[in-house]
Amino acid sequence: MSSDDATVPVSSLPPFGPGQHLLSVSQLDRAALTSLFGLAESLRPVGQGTQVCRILEGAMLGSLFFEPSTRTRLSFESAFQRLGGAVVSTTGFTFSSMAKGESIHDTARVVSGYSDALVVRHPDTGSVAEFADASVVPVINAGDGSGEHPSQSLLDLFTMRQELEARGKSIDGATIAVLGDLRYGRTVHSLLHILGLYSKVTFRVFGPPALALPAEFFEVVSASGNRIVECDSVGEAIGPADVIYCTRVQKERLSEQDEESVHLKGDLLNMAILTQYGRPDAIIMHPLPRDSRHNSFDLSPDVDDFPGLAIFRQTDNGLLIRMAIFSIALGVADHVTDDLRPAAWQRR
Amino acid sequence: MSSDDATVPVSSLPPFGPGQHLLSVSQLDRAALTSLFGLAESLRPVGQGTQVCRILEGAMLGSLFFEPSTRTRLSFESAFQRLGGAVVSTTGFTFSSMAKGESIHDTARVVSGYSDALVVRHPDTGSVAEFADASVVPVINAGDGSGEHPSQSLLDLFTMRQELEARGKSIDGATIAVLGDLRYGRTVHSLLHILGLYSKVTFRVFGPPALALPAEFFEVVSASGNRIVECDSVGEAIGPADVIYCTRVQKERLSEQDEESVHLKGDLLNMAILTQYGRPDAIIMHPLPRDSRHNSFDLSPDVDDFPGLAIFRQTDNGLLIRMAIFSIALGVADHVTDDLRPAAWQRR
Amino acid sequence: MSSDDATVPVSSLPPFGPGQHLLSVSQLDRAALTSLFGLAESLRPVGQGTQVCRILEGAMLGSLFFEPSTRTRLSFESAFQRLGGAVVSTTGFTFSSMAKGESIHDTARVVSGYSDALVVRHPDTGSVAEFADASVVPVINAGDGSGEHPSQSLLDLFTMRQELEARGKSIDGATIAVLGDLRYGRTVHSLLHILGLYSKVTFRVFGPPALALPAEFFEVVSASGNRIVECDSVGEAIGPADVIYCTRVQKERLSEQDEESVHLKGDLLNMAILTQYGRPDAIIMHPLPRDSRHNSFDLSPDVDDFPGLAIFRQTDNGLLIRMAIFSIALGVADHVTDDLRPAAWQRR
Repeated sequence: MSSDDATVPVSSLPPFGPGQHLLSVSQLDRAALTSLFGLAESLRPVGQGTQVCRILEGAMLGSLFFEPSTRTRLSFESAFQRLGGAVVSTTGFTFSSMAKGESIHDTARVVSGYSDALVVRHPDTGSVAEFADASVVPVINAGDGSGEHPSQSLLDLFTMRQELEARGKSIDGATIAVLGDLRYGRTVHSLLHILGLYSKVTFRVFGPPALALPAEFFEVVSASGNRIVECDSVGEAIGPADVIYCTRVQKERLSEQDEESVHLKGDLLNMAILTQYGRPDAIIMHPLPRDSRHNSFDLSPDVDDFPGLAIFRQTDNGLLIRMAIFSIALGVADHVTDDLRPAAWQRR
Repeated sequence: MSSDDATVPVSSLPPFGPGQHLLSVSQLDRAALTSLFGLAESLRPVGQGTQVCRILEGAMLGSLFFEPSTRTRLSFESAFQRLGGAVVSTTGFTFSSMAKGESIHDTARVVSGYSDALVVRHPDTGSVAEFADASVVPVINAGDGSGEHPSQSLLDLFTMRQELEARGKSIDGATIAVLGDLRYGRTVHSLLHILGLYSKVTFRVFGPPALALPAEFFEVVSASGNRIVECDSVGEAIGPADVIYCTRVQKERLSEQDEESVHLKGDLLNMAILTQYGRPDAIIMHPLPRDSRHNSFDLSPDVDDFPGLAIFRQTDNGLLIRMAIFSIALGVADHVTDDLRPAAWQRR
Repeated sequence: MSSDDATVPVSSLPPFGPGQHLLSVSQLDRAALTSLFGLAESLRPVGQGTQVCRILEGAMLGSLFFEPSTRTRLSFESAFQRLGGAVVSTTGFTFSSMAKGESIHDTARVVSGYSDALVVRHPDTGSVAEFADASVVPVINAGDGSGEHPSQSLLDLFTMRQELEARGKSIDGATIAVLGDLRYGRTVHSLLHILGLYSKVTFRVFGPPALALPAEFFEVVSASGNRIVECDSVGEAIGPADVIYCTRVQKERLSEQDEESVHLKGDLLNMAILTQYGRPDAIIMHPLPRDSRHNSFDLSPDVDDFPGLAIFRQTDNGLLIRMAIFSIALGVADHVTDDLRPAAWQRR
């Protein structure tokens, strides 16, 4: 379950494109990212329900969640249906045939025969790639344990880019604070990797010592030519930051280190800390869910009126990113926007 | 869990219309009811599968059942899809992010971003309204604990009206027997409220003493100008009744009052009682499910051939009512019937 | 739980056709089989995602799985949606109203009012027929305990026919080895029955003594004019076989007979056994799932490169068979192929 698992086996994957699996963000170079983000942006009216697209009419998505992740599932299923496709769905540990000793290979081969694409989430690192090997249709990785969750990384990057551009900035040259669980946080690790495609990024990281960033990620950032600074407090980390990326600290992971837990009182970030130390035009991001109970050492709901709070724009953007992913995998990326037409109904 | 919870907080809700939540039947006045019922009736061929409607093509319903209620969920999901829309669905207590401390606000805001409308059921009174506050799309309340379940009230009223009109009568002036659990029965309480929009209605109520109607509802009925009579037996209650509305008595609720349970033998209403005391043209209603095991003090299956048995017409009508609700919330009420066309397939 | 349950009550069912339930394969004669198989074959481009069909647009399938069977559910739900229809789905033991004492009759009547067809799986033999009695729309039996699972029988037969024809043979006159659990295996029993519609078939059966074929099935085969030979080993059974039909042996069923379990080592059938005893052009079938752990006395994954391995063609064909079943039940069998058009997206 070391984070090495996530990086090593994906290095030889083909570029993401028509008919291809999407198992790792490493399958996209910067040109592919730009193209995918442009496609996602052009689908915004569909995500907002003002335009309708039926280009995947008749296509079938198999949605296979071997561990529950309701909102990720809903986002993928909504995205595919927003493009006119239909979904067959299973969730939880209810895949009865696997309980009877069926291999991942057999399950994947059978279910892929019912579908034109699969989205798969599984608790075990590498299992989605194994699934993809036996599938006769493209497989989108929706998270495999401590491994990858590429659509999450892509929506983070897409949002960061959009928010920075709205302030006349870009990811190149940006300063990004990363707070919280730097040790186990999959989204943090993916972000440090994928931002290697951009230049002159400065990371300012802070987490409780027991949840500090593993040494290998300092090397990952340095190798890509970006800069990383370890900070001693949230205030120090966010001071000059254009973007503040928060993650949930699961305090139960710290229970053995009593003396440390004692110092984790209140919120990871709240309005008082933000006002005292942060930039007024800072962009606040979080992969969600956040723990909204106070004293949970997470992002406090008292920042919800802060204009730079982008956490719900992230999830809204997730739908667009997933529509773009499906458009590419099913080979309709060049045609999807020609297919838009006004919706007959009104959004609120 | 007092029934006050249901009535107090909804008083200031806006009228139900395009882009609005439907949290309470109190959001509809009599003109709105008449209009909604007309719309529901015009959609009957769609509910029966002889006509097809695609006006919501491309629209997405988020179906969020935080407690299971399979048939209500299926009815809502069928209704939305009957109009051409698509559904993403979750059920049970499986909303994993809420288990991690996520607030109702965050969950609602995120999921509403994937959808054009939400239907929400939750075990806690008032939680659906809290959900609606954070949603960016209209929320339809599918039941919140002892609170409201407006589509159930509306289908009851719609059916009652239709059945009475088929007999040359109307709700105004009708005599309605209400039997069973008058204390906890949410549908009974909602019915007494909503029928306040009609005039000269006489209620004849009978339930086991431990499940008697709370005093406040006598006031509710009187305040609306209708009349309510407490009866000592089923026979007395149903004698002159145009409509007999039965509800399930959960005998386990009576276990403490031993002497009382002893007298609750056999059925709440069966063919023998109906023939002896009731009108031959009586209309029998029930919110379902009914407990079909004998000695369960519920409506006996031996009435199933009685022509006035409307219990399955109620559930069939539920689909029409829910189609009408979605048409209104999504702003297509004036256009939906123009969109009907014959179905390509045959119903049995 | 005797296998008599499956055969006795279905004898008086009407032929399967428009508006009819499909409860048993006995509802199809050989002409009906030929017709259904032709329809299934003509829908292959839809199953493969190269053609699109929208003939059931606006139609609603109620998918009711009272016990989990994920892949069967996904196959049925995909099939209905591949034809343009929509699905409302429930799975597991979550039908809350039945837990409150609701009868199968009430549940079936209510839910059928939301749908144009139902697919029902239930753990109790005969319960799907009971369900069908109360339904106002056609019910497709997706398995009722030790009873029938007609779409599985039909996809087996369809695949067998197709594979034999590709070798210049036909089911008439074929030799079919049947291996594994002959005692409890529902698919085996159904196969022996339905192949009674074909002539000069020779069955060569082998199973562990504790899982031997019940005597009545020898009579079933003889009565239909076919021939059945009991073999003492896998090698003896498969020697001259055109088709080798394997089933999973659940070794836990043998735990009481210790001396027997001891002899069940390794695989039921693997490449070594196949090469030594079988025909090089043999067709290998299995209803799946297979237990891919070695020493599980099932079909070994080491046969996966054998060209005659048809197990995944079986499941692919299942989708076609289920599309054909729905087309017939909803009365569009004569029109469905006119409705095909090219898909806008590309399959991998």
